[in-house]
Amino acid sequence: MRIALAKESEPGEARVAMVPELVGGLITAGYEFAVQPGAGQGAMITDEAYAAAGATITEDALQGAELIISVQPLPPELVADLPPGTATLSFLPYSHDLEVVRIRRDARVTSFAMDLVPRISRAQSMDALTSQAMVAGYRGAIVAAGMLRQFFPMSMTAAGTIPPAQVVVLGAGVAGLQAIATARRLGAVVKGYDVRPAASEEIASMGAIAIELDLPPLDGAGGYAREMSPERALLQQQRLTPYLAAADAVITTASVPNRRPPILITRTMTERMKPDSVIVDLAADTGGNVEDVRPGTVTRVGQARVWGGANVPSQLPGPASRLYAQNVANVIMLMTADGRFAPDYGDEVVAGMCLTRDGMITHGPAASLIDTELINDGVVIADE
Amino acid sequence: MRIALAKESEPGEARVAMVPELVGGLITAGYEFAVQPGAGQGAMITDEAYAAAGATITEDALQGAELIISVQPLPPELVADLPPGTATLSFLPYSHDLEVVRIRRDARVTSFAMDLVPRISRAQSMDALTSQAMVAGYRGAIVAAGMLRQFFPMSMTAAGTIPPAQVVVLGAGVAGLQAIATARRLGAVVKGYDVRPAASEEIASMGAIAIELDLPPLDGAGGYAREMSPERALLQQQRLTPYLAAADAVITTASVPNRRPPILITRTMTERMKPDSVIVDLAADTGGNVEDVRPGTVTRVGQARVWGGANVPSQLPGPASRLYAQNVANVIMLMTADGRFAPDYGDEVVAGMCLTRDGMITHGPAASLIDTELINDGVVIADE
Repeated sequence: MRIALAKESEPGEARVAMVPELVGGLITAGYEFAVQPGAGQGAMITDEAYAAAGATITEDALQGAELIISVQPLPPELVADLPPGTATLSFLPYSHDLEVVRIRRDARVTSFAMDLVPRISRAQSMDALTSQAMVAGYRGAIVAAGMLRQFFPMSMTAAGTIPPAQVVVLGAGVAGLQAIATARRLGAVVKGYDVRPAASEEIASMGAIAIELDLPPLDGAGGYAREMSPERALLQQQRLTPYLAAADAVITTASVPNRRPPILITRTMTERMKPDSVIVDLAADTGGNVEDVRPGTVTRVGQARVWGGANVPSQLPGPASRLYAQNVANVIMLMTADGRFAPDYGDEVVAGMCLTRDGMITHGPAASLIDTELINDGVVIADE
Repeated sequence: MRIALAKESEPGEARVAMVPELVGGLITAGYEFAVQPGAGQGAMITDEAYAAAGATITEDALQGAELIISVQPLPPELVADLPPGTATLSFLPYSHDLEVVRIRRDARVTSFAMDLVPRISRAQSMDALTSQAMVAGYRGAIVAAGMLRQFFPMSMTAAGTIPPAQVVVLGAGVAGLQAIATARRLGAVVKGYDVRPAASEEIASMGAIAIELDLPPLDGAGGYAREMSPERALLQQQRLTPYLAAADAVITTASVPNRRPPILITRTMTERMKPDSVIVDLAADTGGNVEDVRPGTVTRVGQARVWGGANVPSQLPGPASRLYAQNVANVIMLMTADGRFAPDYGDEVVAGMCLTRDGMITHGPAASLIDTELINDGVVIADE
C-alpha cells in the first residue's frame, strides 16, 4: 500500500502536503511512503529529511500508489493517466474550474477534497481550510504592520507619545480572528466586523471592539456567512465607510467556500481612507473583498495602498505545511482500517470530502454545477 | 525672529523636522514660523496643516531666518550662501564627511548637531538619536517578522502546535531593546546580547534571555559601547556563532556614534545559519554589523537572507518626524530666552551640540579630525 507525496506543480506554491515528522506514523500504520524528489524544497525540507523518516525518494513515486497527496490539485495530464481507482487527496476548489471535476470523473479517480471536510467538531483536526486560514490571518496582520508607515503599538517616550494604530478587520472567521489576535499582540487598537452577529463575542474575546452596523442578522450554514441581497450589501458598505475612513490599516478576510467573496469595500470607500492607510485583502485570490484588488500586487487607490494576497498561506510554507500535513495525516488515519486504505463512505466526513468516485461525481453541489453548465451550453454560473 | 523649516533635500528622506502640532508652541514662545512648500510631503503632512497651525508657507522661508531646522544636513551650496551667524539645527554626522564641518565653519554658520546632544538625563527629551533608534528598533522587528517564512508566536491548533520563532537581538541600546520588546510582543523567544554587562538586566526586563559570552567586560562612555581589540572581537564572534546557528531571525543594532559600527557577524557566521533564516541589520547605513551587508538591499548569504537597513527611521516617517520634532522643539525652547533665540553656551547641552560658530570648529573631536586630516595630507582617519 503506497502513499505518494507529489511535488507541487503550481507556480508559486511553496507548501508540501506531508512533513518528515509525520511520515513515521503513516509507516507504522502500514503504508509505504514514497516522495517525488524535491517535493519539500519550497518549504525548505530536504529529500534527506524524508528519507531519514523512512520514506523512499524516487522519480517514480506516483507509480503504483494507491493514494497520492498534494496541496494543490494534481495537473490534469497527470490525473488523466492515473490507473482507475487511484485515490487523490488535495485541495480541489472546483467552482471556478469544473474541468477539475470532469477530468477526475472521466479518469475514474477517487478524489478527496481537503476543502470539503465538513465543519463538525470531530473533523476539526482534518480541517485544512481552518489551518491555512489561521496562517493567512497571522500573515495578513504582519503584512499590514510592515506596510503601514506608522507604529502599531502606542509608544510613550521622553519625546512624547505616539498613538497606537487603528486597525479594522472585516470578517471574523478563523483568518479574521487570527489577524485580530496578531494586531492586538502588536498593540494596535482593533475593531472587528462580521455579518454573523454571533461573531461579536469572539471578536471581543480577542480584545477587539466589535463593530455593530445595526443590520438585519445573517447567519450561515457550516460556520460560514451566507450571501446577502444587494440592498443589504449596499447598506453594509455605507455603514462601514466611517470605520474605514478612521482606520490606519484594514484587513479583509471574508470568504465563502466555492463562491466569489463579497465586495466589502468599494473603490469609493477606499478613496475615503486616510493618507498612507493600507488595506490587506486576504480574499484577493478568489476575487477579493476590495473592489479592483489584484492578487500578488500592491495597488494605490486614492491615498491608500491595497495589498492583494496571492496564495497567502504559501508565504509561510513551513508552518502552513506542518499544519496541512497534520490535517492530511488525520484524514488518512480516518480512512485506514487494518493497515489498509479503506475509506468508509458511510462516514459523513469521508462522504463529504469525496468529489468523484467510480466515474461518478459524488458531491451534490459540484454535480449540479456541471448540470447547470450543460443546460447553459458552456456558460459557467458559479458566481452569485 | 524667524524659524524656517527646510524641505529635505536628501533622496529617500521622508521625515520632516517639525510637525504642525508643535508649531503653535513655537509661535507662542515668540517666533515666526516659515515652511518651505512640500516640506511635510514625505510624512504625509500637508502645507495646509502647517498653515492652519499658524505657519507661513513660502518658497522664501529660509530668507531672513535666524534658525533653520531640518532632519538631514542642509545641502552644501545652501549653507555656503547663508548669512553669517545663521543657526542651523539638524543631524550632522561629520566623521565620514568632514566637508560638512568645513563648509559650516567657512560660512560662519552656527551649527547645532542633534546627534551631539549629550546623553544626560536633563537632555533626554532632546535626544534624537534615542527617539529615532526607538523607531528603527520597532521597524527592525517588524521587518524580521515580515521576512521570516514562519510564525513569530507559538500556535496551538487542532492540527498541532507550531513552535515560536527563535530571535536573537545583538546590541541592547534603545534600538535593540525596542526590537526585543516588539519581537516579544509577537510571541517570539528572544535572546539578547550586548558587550556592556550592565545591559543584561535591561534585556531580561524586556522578557528576553541575556546571552552571556563570558568575555572580559567592556563598558563605554555616554551609554555607548567602546570599541574592542581584534582578539576580543574574534572571541566574541566565535562564541556568538552557536546562538546565530540556532536562530530563525537575527536583528543587529550595534552602533557607535561617529564611528564605523563593529562587525558582529562575519560571512562565515552567516553561512552557519539555518535554511530560510533572516538577518536584519539596522546599522547597515554606516557600514553594518554584518559583513558585506548592503543598505537598502536584501542579500542572500548561505541559506540566510540579510536585510540592510537604509535610513530605517525614515521608513516610518509619521512617528519618526513626530518624535524628532519634539526633540527639536525642546532644543529650541532650551535656546530661547525672553522670546529670543539666545543659546547659552555655558549650558553643557548647548555647548555639546555646537559644531561650528563664528568661523570656528567648537566641537573637539571634529576639530581634531580636521587636524588629523591635514597632517595626513587628505587621508581621513575616521574609522577605527
